[in-house]
Amino acid sequence: MQRALPVSRERFADWYQAVVRDADMAESSPVRGAMVIKPWGWGVWEQIQGELDRRIKATGHENCYFPLFIPLSFIAKEAEHVDGFAKEMAVVTHHRLKMIDGKLAPDPEAKLEEPLVVRPTSETIIGDAFSRWIKSYRDLPLLINQWANVVRWEMRPRLFLRTTEFLWQEGHTAHATLQDAQEETARMLEVYRAFAEDVLAMPAIAGEKPENERFPGAVNTYSIEAMMQDGKALQAGTSHFLGTHFAEAQNIKFQNDAGGMEFCNTTSWGVSTRLIGGVIMTHGDDDGLRLPPAIAPKQIVVVPMLRDKPEDAEVLAYCENLVKALSGMSIFGQPVRAHLDLKKIKSAEKRWNWVRRGAPLIVEVGPRDAAGGNVTYMRRDDLRDGDKIKSVVKPRVDFIEGAVQLLAEIQAGLYAEAKARLDGNIKRDIENFEALAAYFGEDDDSFKGWVRAPWSKPTGEALEAVGAKLKTLKLTIRNAPADQPAEFGACLFTGEPGVEEILIGRAY
Amino acid sequence: MQRALPVSRERFADWYQAVVRDADMAESSPVRGAMVIKPWGWGVWEQIQGELDRRIKATGHENCYFPLFIPLSFIAKEAEHVDGFAKEMAVVTHHRLKMIDGKLAPDPEAKLEEPLVVRPTSETIIGDAFSRWIKSYRDLPLLINQWANVVRWEMRPRLFLRTTEFLWQEGHTAHATLQDAQEETARMLEVYRAFAEDVLAMPAIAGEKPENERFPGAVNTYSIEAMMQDGKALQAGTSHFLGTHFAEAQNIKFQNDAGGMEFCNTTSWGVSTRLIGGVIMTHGDDDGLRLPPAIAPKQIVVVPMLRDKPEDAEVLAYCENLVKALSGMSIFGQPVRAHLDLKKIKSAEKRWNWVRRGAPLIVEVGPRDAAGGNVTYMRRDDLRDGDKIKSVVKPRVDFIEGAVQLLAEIQAGLYAEAKARLDGNIKRDIENFEALAAYFGEDDDSFKGWVRAPWSKPTGEALEAVGAKLKTLKLTIRNAPADQPAEFGACLFTGEPGVEEILIGRAY
Repeated sequence: MQRALPVSRERFADWYQAVVRDADMAESSPVRGAMVIKPWGWGVWEQIQGELDRRIKATGHENCYFPLFIPLSFIAKEAEHVDGFAKEMAVVTHHRLKMIDGKLAPDPEAKLEEPLVVRPTSETIIGDAFSRWIKSYRDLPLLINQWANVVRWEMRPRLFLRTTEFLWQEGHTAHATLQDAQEETARMLEVYRAFAEDVLAMPAIAGEKPENERFPGAVNTYSIEAMMQDGKALQAGTSHFLGTHFAEAQNIKFQNDAGGMEFCNTTSWGVSTRLIGGVIMTHGDDDGLRLPPAIAPKQIVVVPMLRDKPEDAEVLAYCENLVKALSGMSIFGQPVRAHLDLKKIKSAEKRWNWVRRGAPLIVEVGPRDAAGGNVTYMRRDDLRDGDKIKSVVKPRVDFIEGAVQLLAEIQAGLYAEAKARLDGNIKRDIENFEALAAYFGEDDDSFKGWVRAPWSKPTGEALEAVGAKLKTLKLTIRNAPADQPAEFGACLFTGEPGVEEILIGRAY
Repeated sequence: MQRALPVSRERFADWYQAVVRDADMAESSPVRGAMVIKPWGWGVWEQIQGELDRRIKATGHENCYFPLFIPLSFIAKEAEHVDGFAKEMAVVTHHRLKMIDGKLAPDPEAKLEEPLVVRPTSETIIGDAFSRWIKSYRDLPLLINQWANVVRWEMRPRLFLRTTEFLWQEGHTAHATLQDAQEETARMLEVYRAFAEDVLAMPAIAGEKPENERFPGAVNTYSIEAMMQDGKALQAGTSHFLGTHFAEAQNIKFQNDAGGMEFCNTTSWGVSTRLIGGVIMTHGDDDGLRLPPAIAPKQIVVVPMLRDKPEDAEVLAYCENLVKALSGMSIFGQPVRAHLDLKKIKSAEKRWNWVRRGAPLIVEVGPRDAAGGNVTYMRRDDLRDGDKIKSVVKPRVDFIEGAVQLLAEIQAGLYAEAKARLDGNIKRDIENFEALAAYFGEDDDSFKGWVRAPWSKPTGEALEAVGAKLKTLKLTIRNAPADQPAEFGACLFTGEPGVEEILIGRAY
């Protein structure tokens, strides 16, 4: 069965690379681990940014911008306070280049007294500002977000999923009370969950990460976990309750209304360009990407079927009118994004480009359509009937009148499909580790989904031992979902009484 | 005469710092030369980004994102091709930190084989992509833009005007013909000029930079130059015609329609967070910033005069309704940005905060206003009558009905004021270098504006000599304005026949 990609989802890793490439999303750069985000990929990120930014602002946060470089001493202070502190960071040591023996090299005379670290995350530099900005309880809560690039050295990079440089938003907040900070942590986790569901059409389960998967320095780390089409989990966003750990390390204090000084409780939370990888692996098919209309840079693409003949002018005018009419309508609170493809390539090539890129509606208009007042369109979410492409001919007026409804249907349909996959692939009848091992198999890469099972929530060394056992199966605990039953079976690992249920799976 | 800032524009450099600080725009960071952009400053940048991005897209450009790090070899290749290549760049030499003798330090075992440079601009890394993306004339023009942070080491940083890290957009385009590329260069210069005029209310003169002020590697560099309130020039945007220089260094070729291979002609153009410094120095007064409504993050701020009394509820409800009514209207193609200030500080403090930040309209509502159906408002562009604050009482309905008109008037008024300053302070009667020296004086820092004079357009060493002479007076040639007379007087420097007129002034 001929598809628009050279490889099917059965070879999932290769398929992913093919989609990223053939949908013009991104490519590797000459700098190992960094990527070039191409216009179509960037367009998706702009849509994600736009809508998430509205939601972050609607919950009372203000955007700022903090420096890219962090003094090594800040990082050293954090390292003292934080177990499990990661050290794979880009370090700037010189501020000038010089021709030395005919070769350009770092100038030894421009060596920095204190090396600078390219931010891997900004708790330390933002905490420094907070310690100056916060004086009294009247300054709280302080609710800040920034959109920025960050760098964490990656030995095994994958485009969007794990890159040395990536783009994200990072929220950082300070509160007068522990309860306020906990509420904030939960609020932003829910913003992410709802955003993934409403906008990315990517259902995700919100819950708390186990102790050994916490952000270093956090009291609690929460995540949303989405199920990809190969059954693996993608951690798609995290929200951290930091207690007073960072405030103590960075002296973030406030005067309470009784006049005493207290440390703030702080939080941080973020999502990144990784979400784009999640969208690809949630919605893509063997013809390429399928984009939820809410984040498609172009929701309706109109391809004029031109033949270098006099009737081209009529077809073009007809298409321009169509795009104009569509652009005047609204969906998801924004104008409909309709696009007329005037590139100087063949119409068939255009069609397949838009199929691979996942434009939700692809409209083709030939002389016969123009003369008859019709349009011929394809739904990217329902492209084929067997091998045949399903294209529908409709009167122009009907198509325009129904376009918003069609886009809403596509959005809902993609969500429903992903939701059915998630709901249908969480196995609940695994009762002990042996059964888990038998189910996943050490080298079995076929679709497995996740296991949901009770555990006794061990900590410290006992938890490390559990983690090590799971690792032999390439498994990790994803999170303990927020919604929990009233009673629990026996712990999957120890047989002791369970205290909560957790999700276990393979992950990106 | 008591003003809201501790220092007046008579001490312009100190005044500038005071505005940046007291208008909550930005602050210095612990990393020398880098800044923290605070919410109000960032809000202005968001407005600038939003509107300029629309204009860049409307002229056919697509956004992308390229890596932060550039391999040293790319920079070396450029250095070979380019005279006057600047070398003040941040260099990444290690990718890991390690505890060494109890101190966190770059790990010697994680030294990079090839150092990475933090992008000072992206011609080289984008050119590398272009050389892969462009195959045939059908791929041209290739019109790309990115919004990014860049780093150029600064020894004498000033917030917004000259910082080690700054934010900008950089456009990069490739064309089939020299003429297309020249047209693009001119088109984007005009986009900048019109944007500065329409949106920033900052008139600017577009023209070509002299040879010795060209971007290294450019065939022609054009700029827009704006006049600050101290009479100095601010280069507010540049557009470069690069000919085939970069294409030859980076092998950016295309197959023309006859089947032969040709080098592309390329361009690049950019504006940065420096524009915010320009807005401050164009519109600020001794009470702080005055923001053109088109870029004010909040255009109308409503301050409820609360007294912890039962009638507060009525005042609050009245204010909420007012903000809702205002937010439902549109100006400059966007919803009106109205804000209710609910911070828990005194109303008088709120008023002065918004005055210093330059919110265009500040509305105060007390119980008497609410009961009488009135509002009391101040225009930030016309704040005082002598020492007295001018506040106007108006029926609520009239204020709402007139609000858009008022904002448009403020926008136009700020522009007119700046335009009169620019037009009135370009001196045209300086006929030789001695007169120029007498006019500017070596150590005279008083307001001088610019001189416009003919010159014979020397090149090479003769131009260097002119530059050196001007430097003794702290002067530079800003540009040769696009609009030129039909005939020219004698050259200011040599007395020879002039061939064009240039602008000369002190500059940031």
